[in-house]
Amino acid sequence: MLLLADRLGITPDEALLRVPCVLSGGTEGVLSPHMTIFARVPATQAPGAPALAVGVAFAEAVPAESVGRMAQLEATARAVEVALAEAGLGIDEVEFVQVKAPGLTSARVQEARGRGANVVTADTNRAMALSRSAAALGAALALGDVARGVLAESAIGQDVALFSSRVSVSSGIEITRTEIIAFGNSSRWSGPLRIAHRPMADALDIGALHATLDELGIPSFPTVAEADRARIKAVLVKGMPDPSGSIRGFRHTMLDDTDINAQRHIRAALGGVAGAVIGDGRIFVSGGAEHQGPDGGGLVAVIAEAAR
Amino acid sequence: MLLLADRLGITPDEALLRVPCVLSGGTEGVLSPHMTIFARVPATQAPGAPALAVGVAFAEAVPAESVGRMAQLEATARAVEVALAEAGLGIDEVEFVQVKAPGLTSARVQEARGRGANVVTADTNRAMALSRSAAALGAALALGDVARGVLAESAIGQDVALFSSRVSVSSGIEITRTEIIAFGNSSRWSGPLRIAHRPMADALDIGALHATLDELGIPSFPTVAEADRARIKAVLVKGMPDPSGSIRGFRHTMLDDTDINAQRHIRAALGGVAGAVIGDGRIFVSGGAEHQGPDGGGLVAVIAEAAR
Amino acid sequence: MLLLADRLGITPDEALLRVPCVLSGGTEGVLSPHMTIFARVPATQAPGAPALAVGVAFAEAVPAESVGRMAQLEATARAVEVALAEAGLGIDEVEFVQVKAPGLTSARVQEARGRGANVVTADTNRAMALSRSAAALGAALALGDVARGVLAESAIGQDVALFSSRVSVSSGIEITRTEIIAFGNSSRWSGPLRIAHRPMADALDIGALHATLDELGIPSFPTVAEADRARIKAVLVKGMPDPSGSIRGFRHTMLDDTDINAQRHIRAALGGVAGAVIGDGRIFVSGGAEHQGPDGGGLVAVIAEAAR
Amino acid sequence: MLLLADRLGITPDEALLRVPCVLSGGTEGVLSPHMTIFARVPATQAPGAPALAVGVAFAEAVPAESVGRMAQLEATARAVEVALAEAGLGIDEVEFVQVKAPGLTSARVQEARGRGANVVTADTNRAMALSRSAAALGAALALGDVARGVLAESAIGQDVALFSSRVSVSSGIEITRTEIIAFGNSSRWSGPLRIAHRPMADALDIGALHATLDELGIPSFPTVAEADRARIKAVLVKGMPDPSGSIRGFRHTMLDDTDINAQRHIRAALGGVAGAVIGDGRIFVSGGAEHQGPDGGGLVAVIAEAAR
Repeated sequence: MLLLADRLGITPDEALLRVPCVLSGGTEGVLSPHMTIFARVPATQAPGAPALAVGVAFAEAVPAESVGRMAQLEATARAVEVALAEAGLGIDEVEFVQVKAPGLTSARVQEARGRGANVVTADTNRAMALSRSAAALGAALALGDVARGVLAESAIGQDVALFSSRVSVSSGIEITRTEIIAFGNSSRWSGPLRIAHRPMADALDIGALHATLDELGIPSFPTVAEADRARIKAVLVKGMPDPSGSIRGFRHTMLDDTDINAQRHIRAALGGVAGAVIGDGRIFVSGGAEHQGPDGGGLVAVIAEAAR
Repeated sequence: MLLLADRLGITPDEALLRVPCVLSGGTEGVLSPHMTIFARVPATQAPGAPALAVGVAFAEAVPAESVGRMAQLEATARAVEVALAEAGLGIDEVEFVQVKAPGLTSARVQEARGRGANVVTADTNRAMALSRSAAALGAALALGDVARGVLAESAIGQDVALFSSRVSVSSGIEITRTEIIAFGNSSRWSGPLRIAHRPMADALDIGALHATLDELGIPSFPTVAEADRARIKAVLVKGMPDPSGSIRGFRHTMLDDTDINAQRHIRAALGGVAGAVIGDGRIFVSGGAEHQGPDGGGLVAVIAEAAR
Repeated sequence: MLLLADRLGITPDEALLRVPCVLSGGTEGVLSPHMTIFARVPATQAPGAPALAVGVAFAEAVPAESVGRMAQLEATARAVEVALAEAGLGIDEVEFVQVKAPGLTSARVQEARGRGANVVTADTNRAMALSRSAAALGAALALGDVARGVLAESAIGQDVALFSSRVSVSSGIEITRTEIIAFGNSSRWSGPLRIAHRPMADALDIGALHATLDELGIPSFPTVAEADRARIKAVLVKGMPDPSGSIRGFRHTMLDDTDINAQRHIRAALGGVAGAVIGDGRIFVSGGAEHQGPDGGGLVAVIAEAAR
Repeated sequence: MLLLADRLGITPDEALLRVPCVLSGGTEGVLSPHMTIFARVPATQAPGAPALAVGVAFAEAVPAESVGRMAQLEATARAVEVALAEAGLGIDEVEFVQVKAPGLTSARVQEARGRGANVVTADTNRAMALSRSAAALGAALALGDVARGVLAESAIGQDVALFSSRVSVSSGIEITRTEIIAFGNSSRWSGPLRIAHRPMADALDIGALHATLDELGIPSFPTVAEADRARIKAVLVKGMPDPSGSIRGFRHTMLDDTDINAQRHIRAALGGVAGAVIGDGRIFVSGGAEHQGPDGGGLVAVIAEAAR
């Protein structure tokens, strides 16, 4: 926010209120530290072919006892609707929704208990997962990817058949209100960029990335050529260590390693998969894909300049 | 050795003397714990097309003060020659040589110093790297991939222009003599298997793997089909965190992370690259590629049943 | 078991059935890799002052669905009674009971589900904690440190007011039946050794160790003198990262660190506390002290030669 | 600097130039995140008994090729002399000198090589160690703890017989000039605080801490009483994993662990040792004690209110 505030001519505190910020760290394996900054500027050309559209919204803050529950889910759904409206995007035009959801801290748990409120869990790691789950289902609801009728508190973090392949959620303890950035292609927007996405069936689903690039008109076998690589502006990957403990029938050890956190394992692996296809380590990879893409898998989105 | 001894009807101690054994651990990211066991059995068919040939040799044991020096390099070169002769392989027929080289322990360092001998380094991690370096250059010499004239002690671990793309070395403190397994294709051997290899220019060089599979007649875009996957018997990858601190011009953090060892980083990343192409996590990935493939890169080899 | 089998003149498989084995790893910080082997030999002198007594028992194997539940608790209690009877120890004579309790593996969870059985949790890490909890409460019941009336399944892993300061439990996935080693001082036993123990109020409770040594007649301020150190044969420490997230009101980060496992943190810290007092890093330190000593704390036991 | 700038009414950039800042992270085991801020304020009482004196200085910036060499050593020595003069401290009155020394980055190495300059090592971890070494010897020279005649470039990081037990050095890549904070007791200063220190013979040397507290009139067996604990304002510990690979003859594994960095191991252990004696986890523990206290050991300093 220090860096952004300087550029925007506002204070860091004002930037915090205005700019959604999602960090995924660290940069395991071939991943490279980088920032992707989205800026909306007045159109300089009349709309033509559908172009990248970006909508932003902040949900109302929820108290600690709502994290991981229906109240957070509903608040997220409403905020996604606001972000879509802000960008003039129809739900069918949406390709990718990035959500930053609040976690719990010990202090927030104590505060809630002091008020006689009952948090969903006092385990802050588990609260992160449930917050991602509730937010993902909320966004999925707003996008029409899951039906309201099947949603209930017991589904949050449990019913892995419910998911959206257009939602990626990170959680963090530094916020109390959910932040939304919605991406789509719209003929009401102009500019050189387009976005495409695909679900990933599992962490080895390299075909999802090739197909996403193909949709954007970028040849990628065996890897993206250097000239085309300059067209790629962002690659966003969401995945998870398969909770079954195996991938395609063979055991992995990500969930059993007491020395490397499972999220670091999966980021390193997905960074290898995507980095090798793109030919560049500046890829946003995030673990923790509850209700985000198929169970055990995830999703990939690419933003690139359209072919001329 | 317990498992092998049981099968071979010998004692574990006898198995240690007879069976070279190379372990790479752990299985980061999508990698799956597995063992690949090579067995040579009497031919049941007359030789025809070149088939996988396997030669084995053990170098004489070297004292601690020879580790990482010319004496180890020379001993390795001689052992590789023995392995080739044992398999009847010409140096041009060799596709891949796996070497297990001895490391140093504090005890071995003390023992050498007690005799007035001077080890190349008392830092056991550095000794591992120098042992891999000396062994790789020794094997490269035996294969004709580097010329004797350019070899000197000062080149070991330093002159990155000297390398073989057919040599992979692991080091371990549990052995004192270098172990060699040489692989090639020979028309004097019969059987369903063949081997192919390629250098990897860097950790993102997915094209090397696609090309290796292509040489074996296995289509691999975007990934190997399930039917073909059953033909693949071993995938062997060697790589390293690029010592320059960047890959294709972008910074990586593998060498700066005080929480995850650099070897674990690179194994996780290369496992993602190769696992996604193969569609299977049972891949041998080893870090520490000094003089093994191009600097900052490495090599890949695949053993598969020939197409019918 | 390979090493023991050799000495005992039995096979490794027979040793597995006869010798309880508890490993705690790794050896963080100043801790030193070592093994403590307890052997009972025929008395060579008439009993006099109370001497170290050691009893051993194995509980019946429990199915996966009993792990972390009353059935495992009861089985452990019965096995502790057997171990006490085997050593002729009254419950008031017991100083320390070491328990090795079975964990769950994904395979065992699947097997149970295949039979239509319902495991307490499919999260294998949580199963380890609940197994330790059930075993600790079972041993506490057998020792009379908790009353049968207050025990219920809902207390396991939850009711931190229930504990024994004479029980230390490790869990492991390599066993399916609980293993018990009970230690006490008995005038029916002879030999040079004695054991003493103290609860630790928290991880900083160095006074507990000084008091334990004092009971054994070993001066320890500021540290045990070299002559006395030779009398000390085993130091056993059990502790846990305080689940409140703070120690004596100040925040610790053991439970929030995604790079170092909480158990490795606490072992390193307790190793420093105990190693400095004893002056030797050969100390058994084990994390995971559910119902073992006061909540957030643990216990310490020392076995030493009695002063002459 | 953001926090300090706010309080001091200056900008963060100005604070960087004025306030030496040494961070040691993380807080392994029982250590607790905290900051210790030293502020000098006008005396409100006439000097009486010797009181805590604090002097500050910054060395001139050294180019990358001077790091770890005599030029850095000499620059550090001159800066320590300035800090002592600034505080009016004689070398015999000094109890503890905290030094922050510059590390090397890949960028700085490249910059130096671009100028044709030759850095002492391109391995940034090793550069950190050599920078600490040169700075420690420089401070030791200024304090008279080592004689100028025995100092030479070859001694830096090598001659472990040369050390000061009053110097603690941290290195960081964020600075290019060495920062000095010198502490002593002086009858020209007034205030309630005093400082004392002791060398630590090894990581288990708990007696050094008890003796330091004793000098300050604080009883500490088995631990500091709660009333006295409030008098303690800072505990500063410097240590290292014994480079011989063993402590008092028994093997440690800190230097061989590929999962936990050796510095994190030793901090966790020393935190246990000191935290248990003090009864508080807010202790500054820093690893990397080259030439700082006896080899394999380190030093401890305590700042506390004098007894009334």
